[in-house]
Amino acid sequence: MSSSAPASPALVDLLAALAYGELSGFDHLADDARLAPTLAGRAAMSAMAAVEFGHFQRLSARLRELGVVAEDVMEPFVAALETYHDLTAPVTWLESVVKAYVGHGMAADFYREVAKLADPATRELIESVLVDAGRAEFAVSEVHAAVAAQPSAADRLALYARRLVGEAISQTQHVLADRDALTYLLVSGAGDLQGIAGLIDRITSRHEQRMKLLGLSQ
Amino acid sequence: MSSSAPASPALVDLLAALAYGELSGFDHLADDARLAPTLAGRAAMSAMAAVEFGHFQRLSARLRELGVVAEDVMEPFVAALETYHDLTAPVTWLESVVKAYVGHGMAADFYREVAKLADPATRELIESVLVDAGRAEFAVSEVHAAVAAQPSAADRLALYARRLVGEAISQTQHVLADRDALTYLLVSGAGDLQGIAGLIDRITSRHEQRMKLLGLSQ
Repeated sequence: MSSSAPASPALVDLLAALAYGELSGFDHLADDARLAPTLAGRAAMSAMAAVEFGHFQRLSARLRELGVVAEDVMEPFVAALETYHDLTAPVTWLESVVKAYVGHGMAADFYREVAKLADPATRELIESVLVDAGRAEFAVSEVHAAVAAQPSAADRLALYARRLVGEAISQTQHVLADRDALTYLLVSGAGDLQGIAGLIDRITSRHEQRMKLLGLSQ
Repeated sequence: MSSSAPASPALVDLLAALAYGELSGFDHLADDARLAPTLAGRAAMSAMAAVEFGHFQRLSARLRELGVVAEDVMEPFVAALETYHDLTAPVTWLESVVKAYVGHGMAADFYREVAKLADPATRELIESVLVDAGRAEFAVSEVHAAVAAQPSAADRLALYARRLVGEAISQTQHVLADRDALTYLLVSGAGDLQGIAGLIDRITSRHEQRMKLLGLSQ
C-alpha cells in the first residue's frame, strides 16, 4: 500500500491538516444546518457537509497511498481546528452561511498557497478538494435577502466575519509554531519575508472580495 | 420537469417519508459521530451519514421528476421522525452504533415491505437507497469488543434496542394515522389482517436476527 519513497513530513502534515479540516468542516456544517429556517436551507448546507466528507475520503486515500493512516496523522491538528470552530460557533443561520463561505474561502486560499509549494499531483488533489461548490451564490443570495429585510444585520455579520479572520489567523499561527516541517515548506517556498507578506496580501485581498460580494465590506 | 401522469399521493408520501428519513438520518448520524472514542470511529459513522445524504438527494431528484418539491412534501413526516430521534438519542458511542444498525435496519425492512407494493422503478430506487453499507460488520465488531471487555454492557444495550423498537412502532403508527393514502397502500397491498400480521412477523424476525448477530438477544 505504501509508496516506494517515504513521504516528506511536510507533505503528510499538509494533507493531514487539510483532511482534518474537511472532517471537522463536515461535522460543523452538519451541525450548523440545523439553524436553517427552512428544510431547503437545511438541505443546502447538509449538501455542503456531504461534499466535505467526500473530500476527506479522497485525502485519506492519498495519505494511505503514502503509507500513513489519516486518523493517526490528523491528531496534531485536532485541537487548533476545534478551537477555531468553538470560538466561531455561529448562533444564527446567517452567521452559519457567512462562516461556510467566508471561513471556508479563507482556509481554501491558505491551502492553495501552500499547495503551490507541493508536487504537481498533490497540488492537483488539493485544488480539486477546495472547490467552492456553489457556496458563493448561496451565501450571497441568503445574506442579500436578509440585509434587504433588516439593514442592521449587516453590521453584526461584518463583525462576525472579522472574528472568523482573527481566529483563523490565531489558530494557523498555533499550528505553524508546532509543525516545523510545514512551516519550513511555507517559509522556504515563499522565499523570504517579502514572499510571506505577498502571500498574506493575496489571502487578504481575496477575503475582501468575498466580503464585498456579500455586501458586508466597510 | 413533471411527469405526464400525476403521481399518486401514496407514492409521494412513501418517497417523502423516506427522503426525510434519510435527511434526518444524515443529521443524527453526523451528530452521533461525535460520541466516537476514536477518529477512526468518528470517520466511519460520518461516512454512513454522507451515504444517507446521497440517498436523500436521489429521492429528492425522483420527487422533482414527479413534479413535487421534496422540502414541501417532507413536512408531514418531520415531527414523527424528530420525535423518534429525540426519544432514542444515544448517550454512549455503543448506543449510537446499535441505533445506526438496529434502528436503520428496522426502518429499512419497513420501507422494503411498502416498496413491494409500489411500481417497479420506485421499488428499485427504494431498494438501492436501503443498502446496509457495511453497518452490520461495523456494529458487530464494535459491540462484540465492548461486551467482551465489559459483559454488563450487553443488558443496557439490549434495553436500549427495545426502546428503539418501541419508539419506531409508536411513531410509525402516528404517521399512518395521519396519512390515509399511505395506509391504504399498505393495508390493501398486504391484502388483509393476516397479510399485515405476516409483514409484522417478517420485520420482527429480521430484527431478532440483527440482535442475535450483535450478541444481544435474550
